[in-house]
Amino acid sequence: MLTLTHYQILRFISASGPTTRAELVSRIGLSKAAMSGLARELIDKNLLRETSTIQKQGRPSTLLDLDPQGAYFIGVSMASDPAVIALVDFKGEIVNRIDIARSTDPDEFAQAIANCLPKLIGGAAVAQKRVLGMGVTLSGLVDQEQANCIKSTILGWQDVPLAKIIHKHTHLPTFIENDAKALAVSERLFGEARDMHSFSLIWLGKGIGAAHFVHDRLHRGAHGGAGEIAHCTIEPNGLPCRCGKTGCLDTVASMIAILDAARAQGLKAETLDDIERAAASGSSVAIRLLHRAGSALGLAISQIIQINDPQMVLVTHREERFDGLFSTVMQQAIEANVLPRLSGVTPIQFRKVADADWAVGAASVATHSFLHGFI
Amino acid sequence: MLTLTHYQILRFISASGPTTRAELVSRIGLSKAAMSGLARELIDKNLLRETSTIQKQGRPSTLLDLDPQGAYFIGVSMASDPAVIALVDFKGEIVNRIDIARSTDPDEFAQAIANCLPKLIGGAAVAQKRVLGMGVTLSGLVDQEQANCIKSTILGWQDVPLAKIIHKHTHLPTFIENDAKALAVSERLFGEARDMHSFSLIWLGKGIGAAHFVHDRLHRGAHGGAGEIAHCTIEPNGLPCRCGKTGCLDTVASMIAILDAARAQGLKAETLDDIERAAASGSSVAIRLLHRAGSALGLAISQIIQINDPQMVLVTHREERFDGLFSTVMQQAIEANVLPRLSGVTPIQFRKVADADWAVGAASVATHSFLHGFI
Repeated sequence: MLTLTHYQILRFISASGPTTRAELVSRIGLSKAAMSGLARELIDKNLLRETSTIQKQGRPSTLLDLDPQGAYFIGVSMASDPAVIALVDFKGEIVNRIDIARSTDPDEFAQAIANCLPKLIGGAAVAQKRVLGMGVTLSGLVDQEQANCIKSTILGWQDVPLAKIIHKHTHLPTFIENDAKALAVSERLFGEARDMHSFSLIWLGKGIGAAHFVHDRLHRGAHGGAGEIAHCTIEPNGLPCRCGKTGCLDTVASMIAILDAARAQGLKAETLDDIERAAASGSSVAIRLLHRAGSALGLAISQIIQINDPQMVLVTHREERFDGLFSTVMQQAIEANVLPRLSGVTPIQFRKVADADWAVGAASVATHSFLHGFI
Repeated sequence: MLTLTHYQILRFISASGPTTRAELVSRIGLSKAAMSGLARELIDKNLLRETSTIQKQGRPSTLLDLDPQGAYFIGVSMASDPAVIALVDFKGEIVNRIDIARSTDPDEFAQAIANCLPKLIGGAAVAQKRVLGMGVTLSGLVDQEQANCIKSTILGWQDVPLAKIIHKHTHLPTFIENDAKALAVSERLFGEARDMHSFSLIWLGKGIGAAHFVHDRLHRGAHGGAGEIAHCTIEPNGLPCRCGKTGCLDTVASMIAILDAARAQGLKAETLDDIERAAASGSSVAIRLLHRAGSALGLAISQIIQINDPQMVLVTHREERFDGLFSTVMQQAIEANVLPRLSGVTPIQFRKVADADWAVGAASVATHSFLHGFI
């Protein structure tokens, strides 16, 4: 059984990369002897391994790093259909992947996941006992325990205890998570945000999501609702929203809203790029649409910056290109609505997300739970 | 010297109140023997004390609690003139208080603080060595290290290294903090929010401030700017703001903005209550003003709820009454702009703040730093 201090060591190395025992001693505050014993226990459990030495003032030091083969996590992404099921190692690399049809019948889907686990795990020659948990990501609101889907419009779910249902079929500790939150977790553990204490991630897809890391941890909110920026009021007295309010960000800046508005105004558009090209050729309808959507998203991001002052905002999307008018207007709107003395100091980054990234995100939710002692 | 685990014990008891050793063992994850040793060390240092026993399943248990006389912190509030300097015990009680003229000359002010410390500490018969640190609170932006005042309009300061200047005169570890953030810290350590992992505090005074606790810690933001909601754009293309933008919350909902607008429209008003009474007697100017201001503040709070989903929002103010039209409109605006399924689940509470509360807030910043091992 691991103690709080074991987890602290694993978390520190996960965030900082390969580390000397001396640095762990100074950062975690135990004696050299105690740290040495704890590190030995983690090595014996294959969770840590010793790696190359570095020369510092002439003396060689051994570095401790996570052992990628020490722990594996299953990531299930319901963000796409077919769903992606991936076996992911302790350092976030996919070692095997199976795609299956996404069923909205929870029992049927859980059974389908269970059925493909032997092939997924065995096919990668990974010992079953090394697979410590499962994460599932979906579009929707997930409760505080990361167990129940409170509401998912896309899946047509309301109060579905998915984690329990999957556990019944797979016997694996299972955590479910909202898609943007899961993506933020994998960016923090394995990606762009690895060394950041706080950052916000925006997901621009059919809908709009967001997630925040604060003090090195995912901030889920008291009811799992942190990051629900799609329903921030951005245009007071604006368009009616399916949530019951008016003027929500979702009504003007989600890809569904943008494409619907484009088609309603006679533009032939299947993707953001189609509208960008129309705007580049001078279509005033396309230009107006992109201005309105980009301004709205930029204003919402400026509120996040004013309220939370993150180290970085990472805008994720599934577009091939994201350097057109929409992105330009969005960045101008951020700058125009952030306190001048804070403007420009918050980097805005962009990343295209592929189907496999959601599965890594899902697995990382289980990794994160393990690192915090919940598995 | 205290270790990380000592601080964990102190923080746990600070947040949860008197605790048994068994509960500490189960929550902190050390062995019974190790915990017993650590608790003994903290008792020997007078930071913990044993208190009354409880009967549980027939067996008596001893509770461990913070020893209020074990550590003292000085709190200096520059929120008022005269400034308040208070000696505050480990549990947030003021044991002595001296008011001095607030000087905007940092050296002169630091010297004045140093001059009154012997009387402040000696007058309460507290041993100098028990006074572990000092916190100073002011209206303005404070840097990440809680050492420099980046900007304070009210004090006319820009980049003033106040903590260092005070330390030079007093030799006490000194932390400075923005007023709303300091108030949030004392609410978390000693007040309404004591058992909350996350909450947001709004301060409605001449200006508007906010502060967030997330994961049991004050979230200062990457540049100390978390909570700068005064400059959220709330009325797009609205009134020009002194920050350089337009439509900031500050331009319509701060007490300065409300009172200025009232006077400009011919109302005789010195306090919010004056405008409330005018509105109650049917003044359409007063009604319009309170609607506009309340709607703006409510909208800003709704953005905080959508973005962060806190356990509670605590609205602090210095008004004698806060149950009039302004407060009603504000609460309606929150409800109207929060996702219906989350609406109503976030309690909105109110609290009148007195001059002494700012000094306790200031001291609590040092207490918080101590509990996190920074002193």
